[in-house]
Amino acid sequence: MAAYDYDLFVIGGGSGGVRAGRVAASLGKKVGIAEEYRFGGTCVIRGCVPKKLFVYASQFHEHFEDAAGFGWEVGKSTFDWAKLIEAKDKEITRLEGLYRRGLESNKAEIFDSRAELVDAHTVRLIKTGETVTAERIVIATGGVANPHSALPGHELCITSNEAFHLETLPKSILIAGGGYIAVEFANIFHGLGVDTTLIYRGKEILSRFDHDMRQGLHKAMVEKGIKIILTDVIEEVAEAPAGGLTARTKCGETLSVETVMLALGRDPYTKGLGLEAAGVKTDERGAIVVDEYSRTNVENIYALGDVTDRVQLTPVAIHEAMCFIETVYRNNPTSPDYDLIPTAVFSQPEIGTVGLSEEEAAKRYDELEVYRAEFRPMKATLSGRSERMIMKLVVDAASRKVVGAHILGHEAGEMAQLLGICLKASATKDDFDRTMALHPSAAEELVTMYNPSYRIKNGERV
Amino acid sequence: MAAYDYDLFVIGGGSGGVRAGRVAASLGKKVGIAEEYRFGGTCVIRGCVPKKLFVYASQFHEHFEDAAGFGWEVGKSTFDWAKLIEAKDKEITRLEGLYRRGLESNKAEIFDSRAELVDAHTVRLIKTGETVTAERIVIATGGVANPHSALPGHELCITSNEAFHLETLPKSILIAGGGYIAVEFANIFHGLGVDTTLIYRGKEILSRFDHDMRQGLHKAMVEKGIKIILTDVIEEVAEAPAGGLTARTKCGETLSVETVMLALGRDPYTKGLGLEAAGVKTDERGAIVVDEYSRTNVENIYALGDVTDRVQLTPVAIHEAMCFIETVYRNNPTSPDYDLIPTAVFSQPEIGTVGLSEEEAAKRYDELEVYRAEFRPMKATLSGRSERMIMKLVVDAASRKVVGAHILGHEAGEMAQLLGICLKASATKDDFDRTMALHPSAAEELVTMYNPSYRIKNGERV
Repeated sequence: MAAYDYDLFVIGGGSGGVRAGRVAASLGKKVGIAEEYRFGGTCVIRGCVPKKLFVYASQFHEHFEDAAGFGWEVGKSTFDWAKLIEAKDKEITRLEGLYRRGLESNKAEIFDSRAELVDAHTVRLIKTGETVTAERIVIATGGVANPHSALPGHELCITSNEAFHLETLPKSILIAGGGYIAVEFANIFHGLGVDTTLIYRGKEILSRFDHDMRQGLHKAMVEKGIKIILTDVIEEVAEAPAGGLTARTKCGETLSVETVMLALGRDPYTKGLGLEAAGVKTDERGAIVVDEYSRTNVENIYALGDVTDRVQLTPVAIHEAMCFIETVYRNNPTSPDYDLIPTAVFSQPEIGTVGLSEEEAAKRYDELEVYRAEFRPMKATLSGRSERMIMKLVVDAASRKVVGAHILGHEAGEMAQLLGICLKASATKDDFDRTMALHPSAAEELVTMYNPSYRIKNGERV
Repeated sequence: MAAYDYDLFVIGGGSGGVRAGRVAASLGKKVGIAEEYRFGGTCVIRGCVPKKLFVYASQFHEHFEDAAGFGWEVGKSTFDWAKLIEAKDKEITRLEGLYRRGLESNKAEIFDSRAELVDAHTVRLIKTGETVTAERIVIATGGVANPHSALPGHELCITSNEAFHLETLPKSILIAGGGYIAVEFANIFHGLGVDTTLIYRGKEILSRFDHDMRQGLHKAMVEKGIKIILTDVIEEVAEAPAGGLTARTKCGETLSVETVMLALGRDPYTKGLGLEAAGVKTDERGAIVVDEYSRTNVENIYALGDVTDRVQLTPVAIHEAMCFIETVYRNNPTSPDYDLIPTAVFSQPEIGTVGLSEEEAAKRYDELEVYRAEFRPMKATLSGRSERMIMKLVVDAASRKVVGAHILGHEAGEMAQLLGICLKASATKDDFDRTMALHPSAAEELVTMYNPSYRIKNGERV
């Protein structure tokens, strides 16, 4: 043991790495952890947290508008982007401090440096050039936004990284992508007054989500004034003579905007990490290949979180870290549980979902009952806002188990978290039916859909 | 059968009565239904629905304030009470129309008249004086706000009925009561700018709720600026010489306010209903006594909803109506299920709860694990609002079953609805633990409280 400088060295100070390092240190292990940018990782520094703060900021104009229907007269409002960025940065710095203190108080050694593998037990700290050795190494370097280097003019575009630090709010933006990052930012920018266009190669935004969620959100976004271009992609971005950018699409459109944002997925961040030197295998996307205990092909090296390209979510990385601790330091081999992960898209309206989409469930079950409600939320009756809420339960007819639950509307994320517990507890539709409604609420629709809207037998709607 | 004018006559057009009448009619029964005021009952006309619309109205000033922390500058806002009342009344009228149309489309006969029992099969319609007969009668006349006639000056006070129709918004209000109606209206009036005081005879507001909810809400209300007087009651209300009212309390305080509202509970509405003539028994509070199938002591007369003083909630009345239909018209004797009813207090912050309070659980279980989290919601980090969210799970240590779940904070009501499903599905704490967090959300706290905050053994905290 004393042959190594550390029991555990963690490369990457995001959600997974910090959790693994902190808990290992709390168990008395000698831990070092290196981060080249800021502790907290994508989630805290340029992902979930600042994104959700932006979402809040972008919702206020609707509050101002909605107030009129309830008897309020609201004076003119103005928005100061720089003030939001400053407030956001202050909060992020506070959270980063909490991450650092959590490590420090457990006596993990922090290195504010990029770290690269030299061999299976050796890490080089780039800032100082020193090398340290460790019995075990955890790689948790996360992911990076796909820069789409093949696109002429990609260097003129931003990704979500830069979106969190724009000096000024653009008057117009074109966002490329149809995943949750593209969709969330489209709603954020639109809500802050930016003329917003989304362009996506697919037939509908948010592939893999339930079709009612995809179509319902698309419709709501268009009604708000967000332009959505489908089955098309940007082929070239160039500076316009009069300022701003011009984007030419494959279908022949030319779009003039101030800013182009690429939200085309995220790649595992493994470049230059010394994986070859250590003998760690990656797949064709550059993701580190791991077994069911997050162990790489090198016996003493593990990898957690986005760098393994399993499920790119903060709580999953944390869960993988806790499973690693159980397996390695508590003699309790534990595999991460990826079944029934509830997720949200913090679009406006939100999507909250857990389990199978109708399409996916139809492939796996002989007969489904689909319960679907679409309604105007109570607040909208007075605000006059034209939004609709959609709630949907997908039920295996044979077992009565709810195998998918999908919500579009306010607080769908909070609801999905709780529906996650229901599904994890194997709740049946009968359990839903036996639950008393809570009135007036939106969620009461979930327990008052007594008759199936339709059935699906052998993949066909009947 | 032909000996009676109707198969079923329903007295009272609220949630329970309308449901019973509408569904019976849809099954081909000849149904008459009489309502003396407006169809929709307390819930739609002067309860849940207008109350929640008022809650929305009263929340906007916080949105205006919160916006500043997110970079918004909002002009001066003014509130016009008359506009809110007008918008609310329009919506209530729309909803009343839906209730009437539901009855009409199923061919139930509507009487806009008070109805009183003449004997066990005969009802007098007071408007015309005519009498009609029915094979079965359902009494669903609901409840009325306790007028507290023993209080000198009670005739100068309002109840929730009048609160929905005040001509002008008072500058100050004193609300007597500590139940959910008192608490909700205190928050509504405060939110609309009224100087608000609550006075309650008990040691803490909201008896029977979990103590963390009671204390947490009390604290939040006081921080907002609502004055709360405990262990005291109003002894006299009188007109003040300079206008407004003076309320003298038992403990010797004299309060000068523009309006005094009494929210001292609701009584079953049975006065003058002819119950004696029909031989229907009531209890000492005037509530109609029913068996487990909502049948009174008179074989062909049933009673549903608040008039029976079981659980005063709209969904419960509707559930009782559906059980009545199953029992009487579908040959499927069904008793209402009162176990694990989720409820909310639409205070600000909200309370959402299902199952047992810690105090009640401590009486029933040998050993409890209590999981408790108190935190600042993410939105408050930028808004600067000093609110705290509280989440609490009460777990039977022996079975691991979650026997109580309590939330104080935004959207607690929506969460309680879904926690209701979890508890109804007998979810254990392990089911909660196995559920992946959804980040960032408030509800993720419910699945990440891995260690008990404390235990209770044989009623004692250890």
